[in-house]
Parts: sequence; C-alpha cells; structure tokens
Amino acid sequence: MAGNSFGQLFKLTTFGESHGKALGGVIDGCPAGVTLDLDKIQNELNRRKPGQSAIVTQRKEPDTVEFFSGIFEGMTTGTPIGFAIFNTNQKSKDYAHIKDSYRPSHADYVYDQKYGFRDYRGGGRSSARETASRVVAGAIAKQLLGEMKINAYVSQVGELQLDKAYQELDFSVIEKNPVRCPDQDMAEKMEDYIKSIKKQGDTIGGVISCVIQNVPIGLGEPVFDKLHAVLGSAMLSINAVKGFEYGSGFAGVQMKGSAHNDAYNPDGTTKTNRSGGIQGGISNGMDIYFNVAFKPVATVLQAYDTINKEGEKVTTQGKGRHDPCVVPRAVPIVEAMAALVMADFTLLARSNKI
Amino acid sequence: MAGNSFGQLFKLTTFGESHGKALGGVIDGCPAGVTLDLDKIQNELNRRKPGQSAIVTQRKEPDTVEFFSGIFEGMTTGTPIGFAIFNTNQKSKDYAHIKDSYRPSHADYVYDQKYGFRDYRGGGRSSARETASRVVAGAIAKQLLGEMKINAYVSQVGELQLDKAYQELDFSVIEKNPVRCPDQDMAEKMEDYIKSIKKQGDTIGGVISCVIQNVPIGLGEPVFDKLHAVLGSAMLSINAVKGFEYGSGFAGVQMKGSAHNDAYNPDGTTKTNRSGGIQGGISNGMDIYFNVAFKPVATVLQAYDTINKEGEKVTTQGKGRHDPCVVPRAVPIVEAMAALVMADFTLLARSNKI
Amino acid sequence: MAGNSFGQLFKLTTFGESHGKALGGVIDGCPAGVTLDLDKIQNELNRRKPGQSAIVTQRKEPDTVEFFSGIFEGMTTGTPIGFAIFNTNQKSKDYAHIKDSYRPSHADYVYDQKYGFRDYRGGGRSSARETASRVVAGAIAKQLLGEMKINAYVSQVGELQLDKAYQELDFSVIEKNPVRCPDQDMAEKMEDYIKSIKKQGDTIGGVISCVIQNVPIGLGEPVFDKLHAVLGSAMLSINAVKGFEYGSGFAGVQMKGSAHNDAYNPDGTTKTNRSGGIQGGISNGMDIYFNVAFKPVATVLQAYDTINKEGEKVTTQGKGRHDPCVVPRAVPIVEAMAALVMADFTLLARSNKI
Amino acid sequence: MAGNSFGQLFKLTTFGESHGKALGGVIDGCPAGVTLDLDKIQNELNRRKPGQSAIVTQRKEPDTVEFFSGIFEGMTTGTPIGFAIFNTNQKSKDYAHIKDSYRPSHADYVYDQKYGFRDYRGGGRSSARETASRVVAGAIAKQLLGEMKINAYVSQVGELQLDKAYQELDFSVIEKNPVRCPDQDMAEKMEDYIKSIKKQGDTIGGVISCVIQNVPIGLGEPVFDKLHAVLGSAMLSINAVKGFEYGSGFAGVQMKGSAHNDAYNPDGTTKTNRSGGIQGGISNGMDIYFNVAFKPVATVLQAYDTINKEGEKVTTQGKGRHDPCVVPRAVPIVEAMAALVMADFTLLARSNKI
Repeated sequence: MAGNSFGQLFKLTTFGESHGKALGGVIDGCPAGVTLDLDKIQNELNRRKPGQSAIVTQRKEPDTVEFFSGIFEGMTTGTPIGFAIFNTNQKSKDYAHIKDSYRPSHADYVYDQKYGFRDYRGGGRSSARETASRVVAGAIAKQLLGEMKINAYVSQVGELQLDKAYQELDFSVIEKNPVRCPDQDMAEKMEDYIKSIKKQGDTIGGVISCVIQNVPIGLGEPVFDKLHAVLGSAMLSINAVKGFEYGSGFAGVQMKGSAHNDAYNPDGTTKTNRSGGIQGGISNGMDIYFNVAFKPVATVLQAYDTINKEGEKVTTQGKGRHDPCVVPRAVPIVEAMAALVMADFTLLARSNKI
Repeated sequence: MAGNSFGQLFKLTTFGESHGKALGGVIDGCPAGVTLDLDKIQNELNRRKPGQSAIVTQRKEPDTVEFFSGIFEGMTTGTPIGFAIFNTNQKSKDYAHIKDSYRPSHADYVYDQKYGFRDYRGGGRSSARETASRVVAGAIAKQLLGEMKINAYVSQVGELQLDKAYQELDFSVIEKNPVRCPDQDMAEKMEDYIKSIKKQGDTIGGVISCVIQNVPIGLGEPVFDKLHAVLGSAMLSINAVKGFEYGSGFAGVQMKGSAHNDAYNPDGTTKTNRSGGIQGGISNGMDIYFNVAFKPVATVLQAYDTINKEGEKVTTQGKGRHDPCVVPRAVPIVEAMAALVMADFTLLARSNKI
Repeated sequence: MAGNSFGQLFKLTTFGESHGKALGGVIDGCPAGVTLDLDKIQNELNRRKPGQSAIVTQRKEPDTVEFFSGIFEGMTTGTPIGFAIFNTNQKSKDYAHIKDSYRPSHADYVYDQKYGFRDYRGGGRSSARETASRVVAGAIAKQLLGEMKINAYVSQVGELQLDKAYQELDFSVIEKNPVRCPDQDMAEKMEDYIKSIKKQGDTIGGVISCVIQNVPIGLGEPVFDKLHAVLGSAMLSINAVKGFEYGSGFAGVQMKGSAHNDAYNPDGTTKTNRSGGIQGGISNGMDIYFNVAFKPVATVLQAYDTINKEGEKVTTQGKGRHDPCVVPRAVPIVEAMAALVMADFTLLARSNKI
Repeated sequence: MAGNSFGQLFKLTTFGESHGKALGGVIDGCPAGVTLDLDKIQNELNRRKPGQSAIVTQRKEPDTVEFFSGIFEGMTTGTPIGFAIFNTNQKSKDYAHIKDSYRPSHADYVYDQKYGFRDYRGGGRSSARETASRVVAGAIAKQLLGEMKINAYVSQVGELQLDKAYQELDFSVIEKNPVRCPDQDMAEKMEDYIKSIKKQGDTIGGVISCVIQNVPIGLGEPVFDKLHAVLGSAMLSINAVKGFEYGSGFAGVQMKGSAHNDAYNPDGTTKTNRSGGIQGGISNGMDIYFNVAFKPVATVLQAYDTINKEGEKVTTQGKGRHDPCVVPRAVPIVEAMAALVMADFTLLARSNKI
C-alpha cells in the first residue's frame, strides 16, 4: 500500500531506482491468451527513450525490456508478467554534488525527511526513469483494448499553444516531428523554442492532450472510481504534472448549463461533447479527451543557491544530462497510463451485469 | 471494487440513492480513542444542506446523521463507524417525467446502458446527494488532523474570478456570505450573478480553491499514490468536477524552470511555493493549495429536446428544485474529501520508518 | 484496511456492536439485475437467530434486516446494498459485571490492550452477533450462484462424531432437527448431549462440515488467493473457529501419493475426490467439501476466577443468555461465508480469459 | 487482484514459472532504514533449496537471489524491493511427456480449463518453485520482527507423529537433521521412513508445526482479518497444504468450555494457552502455535493411467526429480509466510490508536 501498484484487475506494480541495478515491474491480472507483439512494446519504450532527438536529454540508455514470466510461446498465460529494464549507463558521479545538498523543487529534501535518508543517485525512486516500467505495462494494456485508440500529443510548450480542436488535427503527424505535435508548423515553432531554452541551460513546461476513441459505453464506476477520477490520478501520478482537466475542463466553469449540456441524437450519441465522453463517471461512447499540465523540469544547468543537510547555504551548478522540456518524451507515458486505466475498467466492466 | 470505497487505512464506503430509504456509510480504520464532537459533524452537514440560502436549491432536507456503531461514551472505539442519513423529503413524482427519457449531460443514459436499468428517482446513485455521506466522514477525519487546517472557498463563479492569492485573503469571511467567497465585495457580485442566473432558469459553473495549512512533512507516497494524485482523484470524484490543478497548475506550464523553482530557506521551508506544498508527491511542510473546476449543473428549468429509451425525440420541461450554481454547497464537500485524504496519509505515514 | 471488509469484487463491509444501535453492512459489487427473494434472506437470518430451539441461547432478537439502498423494484441496481439490523433486546446491565474484569478466553483483555478501552457490552464488536450481517450478505450471494448448492451441517459435537461420508447423507434432514445434523439418530444423541451440557452451565465444541456442489471449473486464483486459502480464511474469521481442513485434510498426511491421487475419468472428472474439488487452488468441477472446528463457547454459567483491569484477582459468576454449543446456529454462517467466497470468485473468473 | 500479492502494508507480489527465465517478486511497504543481513536471506533460500540432503529432490538449483532495487548502502530505502532468482537448471524435456496429458492431482487440467492453455514445463506457475520468492520476502520480514521468533519444524511424517508439546522441544535440534524435526530419535525414524518411501518411487504427507514467540499484544484485526484467519490463508496458500489448526485446534472441539478456558495470571498472561496466543483474532502476548497439514506429493515415480487433452486414456511413467516428502523443505516456507503475516500486522498495528 506504499503506492507502487496501479489498477484493480489489470494491476501494475513497479520497482527500481534510476541508478540501481534495474527497474521493472509485475503485471498481475492480464488475461490469458493475448498474443503479444513484443516489438510494439519495445517501440513504445523507444518513444520514451533519451537521446532520440536533439531536444531531449542526450543520455544513452538502451532501455531494453526483458520479460521473466507470464508469456509462453508468444501468448500471455494469465500468470503475472514480470519484467525488468537493466540500467547500463549510470554515471553516478554526476550526482556526487547533490549527495549532501537539496536541489530546489526536487524530492531530495522530502525523501530525507520521510525516510531518514535517500538513494541520491539521479533522484533514485523519484526519477522519471520509473515511468519506463509504466510504458512497458501500458504497451501490453494497449494490446487488450481492441478497437479503442489512444492518441496523446503535445498541445502547448511554454506560451506556444495549439489552438485547434482535436477534431481538426491529423494524428498521423504526431510521430513525424520530435516535439510530437500534430501540427507541423506549430511543431517547428515549438522545436525552435525548446532549442533556445536549452541553449540558456533552462527548461520550460508544456501541455499534453490525449484523445481516446472508439470507447465502449459503460466503463467507469459511479462514485469514487469515476472514469475521469482514475484517469486524473493516473496522469497526476506522472512526474512533473501539475494539473488535469477533461471535456470542457476549466473553461467550462464560465458556461451556462443551457449552453454546456450535450443534446442527444436519436442513437444516443451527443451533438456536442463538452462532457468529454464521460457522464456521471461512466463512458458514454463519445471520444474521451483531456489535458495534462507539466511544469518545467526542475534541473536547470545554471548556478543556483540552495541548502545542504545542515541547512547551510551552498551554491551549486546544475549538471548531468537533462530534458529542456519533458513533454515530447512524456507523450508515450500519458498514453501508457491511459491504456492501463482503460484496460482495468474493461476487465472490471465484465462483472457489472449478471 | 465497484468503487464505493475511498482510502486505504482510513477507509470510507458509502451507500444510498437520492430517493431511497437512506444514504450512509461505514468508516473503517478510524483509530480508537478519538473524542468526537458530534455537533461539528452535523454542522458540516448543515453547510452542505439544501435550503440554507436564497442561491441554493430550496429542497427541504434535514440531513440529520444517525450513528450506529464505532462510538462509545463519546469516543471512537477503533471499530467501524456505521452511519445513515434517512431520506425524508422525497418527491419522487418530480421525476416521473424522466423515467423514460434521458436528461442531457446526466448519467441517466449511461446507467441504463451499463446496468440494464436504473433507479430514475432524482438521479439515484449518481445524485450529488451521495456526497452527504462524504461530509460526515470528512468531518470525522478533520478531528484526526490535529493542527492541520483545511480551508476551501469559492474563487470563481462564471466569469467572476477572485484574482487574489490565498495569502491575501481573510478565511474568516468565508462563512459570512452565502457564496462562501472570502472577499465580501466579490461575494456580493457573485451572489447577484447567481440570482440572475436562477431567474433565467439556468445554471452556471465555478471554481473552488482549497488551502491546507500546518501540514507535516512526509505525507504522500512517491509513485502512483502521490499526495496530489490522490487529492486530484478525490476532487474529480465529486459530482460536476471537470478539472484539478495544484501549486502553479496550468499557468505553470508557461514558466521557465529557473523562474519556477522554489529556493530553500535554511530551515528547509521555501521562499516561494509554486510546488503547492508537495514535491515528488510528498508534502514538504509548506501550504498545500489547489483549484477544482465545477461545470454548470445540467438540470436547467427550461424546455429542452432529448430522447427517450426508444431513441425517439421528446421535448421536456426541466422541473424539480435544483441549484443554479453548485459551488457554494460544494465547499464543505471539497474540504471533506481533502480531510479524508490527509487523514489516510497521516495513518499511512506511521508505517514508513522503522 | 482494519479488516471489516471481505471480498474483492463482491465485497462486504460490516459494522456494529452487539449492544449498539444497529449492526449492518454494505455490499459493493453485486451485479445489477438480480431479482432478490427477500424472504430467503430473512429465512437465513432466522436459521441463525437466537431462541429458535431449546439448545440455543434464549435471547429474543427478532433480527429483522432493513435494506437502505441498491435494490429498486425488487432488483439489484448494481449500486451498493446498504442494510442494518436494529438491536432491540439489549440487556446491557447483564454485562455490568464484566465492565472492569476480563472473561477468560474472551477478547476483553486484548481489546483494552489494543484500543485503550472497549465497548464492554456483550463483547461489543467481538460478539458473534456481527455474523448476522454476514448471513444477510451470504443470502444475497447465494442468489448469484445459479446451480451451485452449498450445504453445511453439524458433523460433530464433543466426542459425538458422524462417521459417514457426505455422499451417504440426506441433506434434506439437516433442517429437520435443531442440531442441523443430517443423520436423525446422531442428531438426537447430539441434542440430548447439548442439553446435559447446558444443565451443567457448561459448553461444548463441535465441527461443521460443508459441501459445495455443481461448482464450475476454474474458480480460484493460483497463488495466494487459492480457492481453499480464501475459504479457509473465511471460515477462520468466524468466531470460535480453531481449524479448517478440506478434501483429505489432516488425515491425508498419512497417505502415500500413489493412494492419494485422484485418477481421471475420460470426461475430466475424477474417480475419487481426495482433492476436495480443488487442484492447485482452482476448482476442478468436483464437489468441494471441508470441515470447520469450533471450540466450546467461552462463557460458562459457573463461578470462575479472573483478573480486573488492575490485575487483581476477582471471582465472577457467568451470567447472560448464551449458547451451550455454537455449531447449530453457526451452520448458516458457514454457508454464508462460503457463498461470499464463491460469488466473489465467480465474478473474478470473468476477467481471466480474453 | 489475480491473487499474486500478499499483505496490506508489507506487501509481496510474486511472479515466475518453474521453467521460465526467472522467478521473483516485489516487496512494497518495507519501512526505510532496516539494515539487511543479505546472508540470512540466502541462508533461508538454502534451507528450501533442492539437493540439500538425500531425502529431498536431487535437482540442482543454486537459487541465488539478485536484488534490483530498494536497498542502498545495505539499508532498505522505503522504496519497493525488486528481486529475482534466475532459473539455471531447467530440463524442460523432462516434461515433454506431460505436455498433452494431465497428471492426477496436479493443476494441469484446471489450468487448461481456466486459461485455455498452460506453460506445461514443470507445472509452470503452479510449481512449488514459486515459494522461493516467498522465502526471500519472508527472510526480509523476519528482520523487521525484533524480538519475535518464528520456529517451524516437522512434527509428523505419514503415521510417525511427534507426540510432545512444543514446550518440551529443543528448537536448536531442528536444523541438525535433514527432516527438520526437533526430536533426534523421531527425526531418524522419519528419515528412514522417507528413504523407504523414496525407494518405492512413492511419496508421503506430513505436518509442520510452527511456534511464534515474544509476540507483542494487539496484532490482528477483529473481524475478517483475524490474526489466525490471515495466518491460515497464508499457510493454505502453500502448495500441497490441506489443513490448518491453531491452539487447541480440532482436538479442542471435544472439550468443555470450563476445561478449555485459559485462566488469567495477575499480569495478563494465561495459566494455559489453548487459545494459541490469539483471542478474538488478536494476539494476547502468549506463544502463537499452529499446525499445517501437507498431502503427499502428487508426482510418483511409477506408471499410472490418466487422460490426454482429447480425454483419451494414456498410461504414463512418472519422471523428473521430485521430493518423496515435501515437509523438510517446506519448513522455511511456513516460517516465511508467518513472518510476512506478522510483519504486516506489526505495521498495521501502528495505525490503531491515536
């Protein structure tokens, strides 16, 4: 219950520190008989991998997943799927300078306070490297979703905001640029901007939008486990996320009910979709869409003042290989968490009716 | 696992439909030896109660809580606390007109699809009346929190937005106006606006902000159960909520890391608090603050077109006694959910260190 | 997590002390659309009820269940089923004598140690009265089990042991005698013996056997949640239970593998059933059968020495209205717990295969 | 929820098939700051290891555990402990003969029925090899238990029964003979008997007794999670276990309450301990003791008739390297599961009182 598991029936438990021997996880509850495309899994990891373009961290981590169990002759057996990604490129010395001091807006300080000490190498468990395990599990969950399609993309970097509704976008463009923005012009603007931020040794925040299509009606549970509540907690559990909104979101608060309501078509679909595909916490068959806000990465490659364990002021120089902007690499993470949620509710929905 | 429970160690399970015999719940895991102030519990229910002012629904529901167990001679015994609020003012006939038709942006349609049929009276389980049980449990949780103080308030109604940082506000004003806005001038503007909306038989959305003070360091779990992830799911599980952000939130995405980072003071506090009191999912002792977006209530007292079970178009007139704006009554609900989260992590934190 | 919930998908949470206002519970996860026979539920409660015969406690408790939610027009709605049994016959004064002293082999002492104090009236939460809530939930679970039949009966009282295999028994006899033994001759012997024990103001232990027929193949999970492990914990959670064995049980340890193994018939059934219907933790379609050992009730109506809160020796006289032998009334409790387990695994099995 | 996790706060999730790449697990919730003696962990694995004596299977499996995370500079960090035991001695061909046929009293048949197919090599997930992961976790749990001591030993093999109360035994003898019986004379008798059974290519059952000393008062939860109910499910989840009893157990049913009750000493201890150290599901500070019944191993090295997937009769010859009697190697497994239960309740107890 120390919060390293996610899901009820399709359940992921992860382990691993950024500079330990390996990261990985166990998926419990994956149904038997799923023929897994292992290349698709590695491909999702590659989308998250460092060094994939000029605008992300240049760390070299192969991030190759190794499966230990739960798959036999290419099919899931219904038993737990254990897997690991072995660390190969640990430059622990990069972190010697933070062993005794606390990086601003990192978890260093609270870890020492909560646990009494910490694995200071690369942030240890608080490193976003942990999300590699989520991407593996999400890639397996995706293969359970049948017709459902999950498309995440970068819709904002700093003040550069894509002001198009998702219906106007061509998702096939997403993987054609390093930013993962479905609008090529905006993608280039964002790319240039991230490069300039990188030059400054600084970082910048962004927003990832996600659209889930072909969703069956009836996923989600009415009260505490509303579909959007679980999606929200899934997204908020990703490193650096500061906010979540779905459907009309924060903008919806300014609308009147008469204007906000989604009128029905005879077939039960709705003429508009301000509900974001979810009513009363349950999917209504319309597209689900939501936005996830990411703060700027805390590690800036600049000199800064902070404190050490004794509370003495120290001046430090940010080092290591870090992302100037996290959203391009976070796109597959958002998709993975969304896939875990949808797979779990898909299994759960089977027990709703007699 | 059908999602009617919340919490791990301080665990609430709720039951009840808006027009059934009673609503209520069971709190499992409340420590023994807590002297409960029962008046404070009823007082929280009264803050949520219909009919408390001219700008909320005029339904008359006493909402008196009755405790069945877990309390002996005024103290919690450590055994489950069972309680119920008996329904007394059910005007089921008010809902005969929706028995066979689906109200836009309500859960009627998805319930029929998910469960095969539904208790159509007043929305049944999907009614916000369910939150009365949360308020009871939250009022008990508050009594476990010692120095911690939870203050929620209305910061926006429609386009009327309170543009002051919470530090500039006088929380003692919150309960002095029916809107529950800590700025009296803005409160009056909001009140007038809600009245005009009501006259139109329409509804309007709003935002509730919440500040948690005197938070001990170390609450929250690092990965999936980050403090803000659980707070977010708690808030998103409240009826009509469309978004959640904490600390710098969505605005933070436009900032550079060098400007966003919170520098440390020698005592471990931070000079700024864009982190919103949480770093890496763990409380750092600074104030926790977040915003919750509420859409406009779907039930408008106007004529509207919709469909019936056969998918035929029907024209209906919105009836019943409803809130023109939900946020004034939702303030104690936001506080209750926040209290449940903080109480649960307080108990959980006890098992972190040897 | 303080252990007042049972089950994963068909989940019961109970509350209530023997002398509080009410006992009851919440069933979360009952599928929608189950037409409930409420008389059958009350009938199960009556099988457990005090005062039903001369060999059980003569307390008069109507034990009438009241449903609050989750049932609409006679059918389950898929929402939580809240219910309560109001206490009407509390003679708290009966217990004044134990307020400050500890009854041997009762939970009085450990409750004071664990919680700091206790509701001393009638054992409070540790009273077997809590099982009334389980019987209600079990009676609902039974209505989910289709062809599955659960038959529990008394197979031993003190040294009086029914030495027949369950296949030789006529289950229709069970309810025809107050002992609930399917062999009328043995039932009469047991009844006379219990009466003699009662005359002595003493108590005696016994064994309940249970047979589950028409079990589908594939219920149970392979590792920690083996079907017999969950059945075992369900039975061991019943007051006064000291042991559980299934299939060949403790006698099986003396057998050789060549003699113990169950050979297959061509249709997958087995010629013998020493496995007790479960292989590797999963039902194999054969009858499931197990034994549950109950110790003698601790409350004897005799004078005894014990200690008070100050650790001083006190001599007390056992009072109140108690069962000389608990097994006749425990038969419906064993069936209820078995039904909860089988219903839960039935729902869980739906998510095993794609 | 497919049952590969055990525990609430000290939580083990295991993965792995007997002939897959590796077995292992994740421990979530181990407190930070525990200095781990890794040799003690490997030593427990060695106690379970094949080939350790002439009376166990002669398979050669080094069973060396590799830790991936959660331990830094010799101390637990409070983050999940991931570990694996890589398989090195897989003779899958040994199992080709059972690919299409079902071994009597094995899980082969039910796995095919439940999952549609199975990893037939060495029983796959249903192999007792899975328990190696439990032994690793249990060895870590033991290091959390302070003064608590867990001693398991073999008390019966076939009809050879150790008829001494545990108080009369010298636990230091347990590891001095291959049977792990604390009585040297009986140990030799058992050893000779197991050897004769082995010569016959047959197998025999047995009983393991376990004593937990220096238990703090107050562990266990009153209703469904009674200490003995969780201990029971833990033991029943071990391969080949058919029964569990604690304290007076099945023999207690023949006693009268006046004789069974444990009278108190002034200090709260009891003069006798038929309660087995647990009253009302909560530890009372006296020794906890229980018995676990193991059936004879199903794999006999003899010719036997069975069926194949088509339901046709086939005659097979038992092959492979198997234990003639499982109890000597199961002693550390029983201790491991007991340690997991006691560690979990120790953490849980911290949240009982304010």
